[in-house]
Amino acid sequence: MLTVPVSLSANPYEIVISSDFFPQFGTFFKKWTNGARHAIIISDTNVEPLYAMKIAEILAESGVENDLCVVEAGEESKCVEVAQMLWERLIECGADRKTVITAVGGGVVGDLAGFVAATINRGLPFIQVPTTLLAQVDSSVGGKTGINIPQGKNLVGAFWQPKGVFMDMAVLRTLDERQYRAGMAEVVKYGVIMDADFFAFLEKNVEKINSRDESILSQIIARCCALKAEVVLEDERETSGRRAILNYGHTFGHVVEKLGGFGTWLHGEGVGIGMTFAARLALKLDPENSELKELQKRQDALLEMLRIPTRIPDFPRDEILNTMLRDKKTENGTLRFVLPNRLGDCVMKTIQGIEKFI
Amino acid sequence: MLTVPVSLSANPYEIVISSDFFPQFGTFFKKWTNGARHAIIISDTNVEPLYAMKIAEILAESGVENDLCVVEAGEESKCVEVAQMLWERLIECGADRKTVITAVGGGVVGDLAGFVAATINRGLPFIQVPTTLLAQVDSSVGGKTGINIPQGKNLVGAFWQPKGVFMDMAVLRTLDERQYRAGMAEVVKYGVIMDADFFAFLEKNVEKINSRDESILSQIIARCCALKAEVVLEDERETSGRRAILNYGHTFGHVVEKLGGFGTWLHGEGVGIGMTFAARLALKLDPENSELKELQKRQDALLEMLRIPTRIPDFPRDEILNTMLRDKKTENGTLRFVLPNRLGDCVMKTIQGIEKFI
Repeated sequence: MLTVPVSLSANPYEIVISSDFFPQFGTFFKKWTNGARHAIIISDTNVEPLYAMKIAEILAESGVENDLCVVEAGEESKCVEVAQMLWERLIECGADRKTVITAVGGGVVGDLAGFVAATINRGLPFIQVPTTLLAQVDSSVGGKTGINIPQGKNLVGAFWQPKGVFMDMAVLRTLDERQYRAGMAEVVKYGVIMDADFFAFLEKNVEKINSRDESILSQIIARCCALKAEVVLEDERETSGRRAILNYGHTFGHVVEKLGGFGTWLHGEGVGIGMTFAARLALKLDPENSELKELQKRQDALLEMLRIPTRIPDFPRDEILNTMLRDKKTENGTLRFVLPNRLGDCVMKTIQGIEKFI
Repeated sequence: MLTVPVSLSANPYEIVISSDFFPQFGTFFKKWTNGARHAIIISDTNVEPLYAMKIAEILAESGVENDLCVVEAGEESKCVEVAQMLWERLIECGADRKTVITAVGGGVVGDLAGFVAATINRGLPFIQVPTTLLAQVDSSVGGKTGINIPQGKNLVGAFWQPKGVFMDMAVLRTLDERQYRAGMAEVVKYGVIMDADFFAFLEKNVEKINSRDESILSQIIARCCALKAEVVLEDERETSGRRAILNYGHTFGHVVEKLGGFGTWLHGEGVGIGMTFAARLALKLDPENSELKELQKRQDALLEMLRIPTRIPDFPRDEILNTMLRDKKTENGTLRFVLPNRLGDCVMKTIQGIEKFI
């Protein structure tokens, strides 16, 4: 069992990485919540029979009364209407200020349940049990929650830190191949933006990653969580600009998700394509930079070996531009973009005249 | 011009009380937002022609580009559907991370706009221009924002502190008589719960209050804001229990608003009736207490002189009980109630068997 601390001053918490299907979840739940006696589990139709019912049993065995709210699996559930349904269900389930909202699922469930936890009764304690690779390495650290509106992804949300995150390697055994690949795109991202040694570690372990070796995976996930925690500690609410590096691949990734229609591309697939786009954009801005050439080559090769999609879809150019300029990472109309300097180092750059490069 | 500081460590801000229709609002807006260049004003159909257009002009004269989003006046606008409409409008108006959401209106507009500010792009800077007495003495301090769902008032919301609050006594000249009385109920509340001298000051100045003497009113409002700030500083997120004293009159007040049907009773009217209920409940629990007898007598008299409704409506007893037990101030099913000890002092009490007293 590995533990990664997230030492936020106002709300420190820990991430536990176990194996063999959530042993000790009940113990950690009680520790993290000062012995709370009521939980409401939010999950989706895919994860309910696999793990949410298991978590409900574990809680019941630990003397924690619990209710289970299940939403349809898929990005479409990350919307105002489903949030509204959950707010109403939570109250009907008797949610009071000591009720713990427990998300069991992937990124959609975590973002949605986190947003609902942040806003019901002006904020209830929240625990995450991420069951996809993407959720384990990304949304389990940092406190971002949110839902989509027709104008774009995650435009409505809140920062809301969990009381603790519990993940188990065993859930990755049954994870859909496409979801697994998509999650691995975010893993590669951490190497590119802040840790060249970790990137090399991934290159060396491609086969074990592809065969889902649990020992390698738990090391990888712990490293990703620690890297993300490092950034989040420096910039919890994305005010200093440091946290923005985590958006590497995301600006164009959102374009892919949006123009493809929500649900067509997985978030991690968008990120893989977005990273490919960003590496090329960096090189267009500085064509003779040998470090950027090496980065592009190694990033392309690793993504390919991990079978992560990289081909940029053929969207109309003006739709790409319009979508990017409306993305929330614009400030006063200027387009800002996270671009690599070299492997393991990247920076937010302000780009004027983006249309020249698309 | 009076200024009340709200010295929250993470986000200190000030409340400015001016007269003569918002002189220097533009100056304070820029000071509080580090010179932001884009504001979105949220107001309602009543306040738009009176003050929101004026605020828009002042901002434009100060070089702040601004958009105006107007919702229907009334409690019905404090709902998910209107919040959703605003989220979408804000993005269409080009809200980015430096856009300042500016609420111009009463409590409904402040709560709704604050919730939308807290949740659009995971939180944008927020400025309040409260235009009713109730909003000036209550919702302008403390950072509570929220909307209603069918299950109850303010069940969905967030804590979101403003960058500054600007209020002007001149708006009270045209305030509807009923709204004015309702706001005065919250004023009396501060005296009862934490400041017997202030209560005596109100008793002495009943005539000036009833004639809306602006000099007396600005003193009263500054005192209420300072008292509320004192409580909020001790317990920003209602975790220590101290902040709960502000809910004096509110548990039963919510029952009145809910069972009367949202919109039938003004919030402040509910509070006036709720205070009357709470003073009687305290005396039922301790019938020989002379301080409580005096409190009830003086509270009744002052509310009456200020023409604030106190008669408890004739709702079915089981509906009262069910509504109270589902109120969010219950914890693990126990009913807690803010009750006075004596004039200027009150405390949260746990009540078992509330049905014996209703």
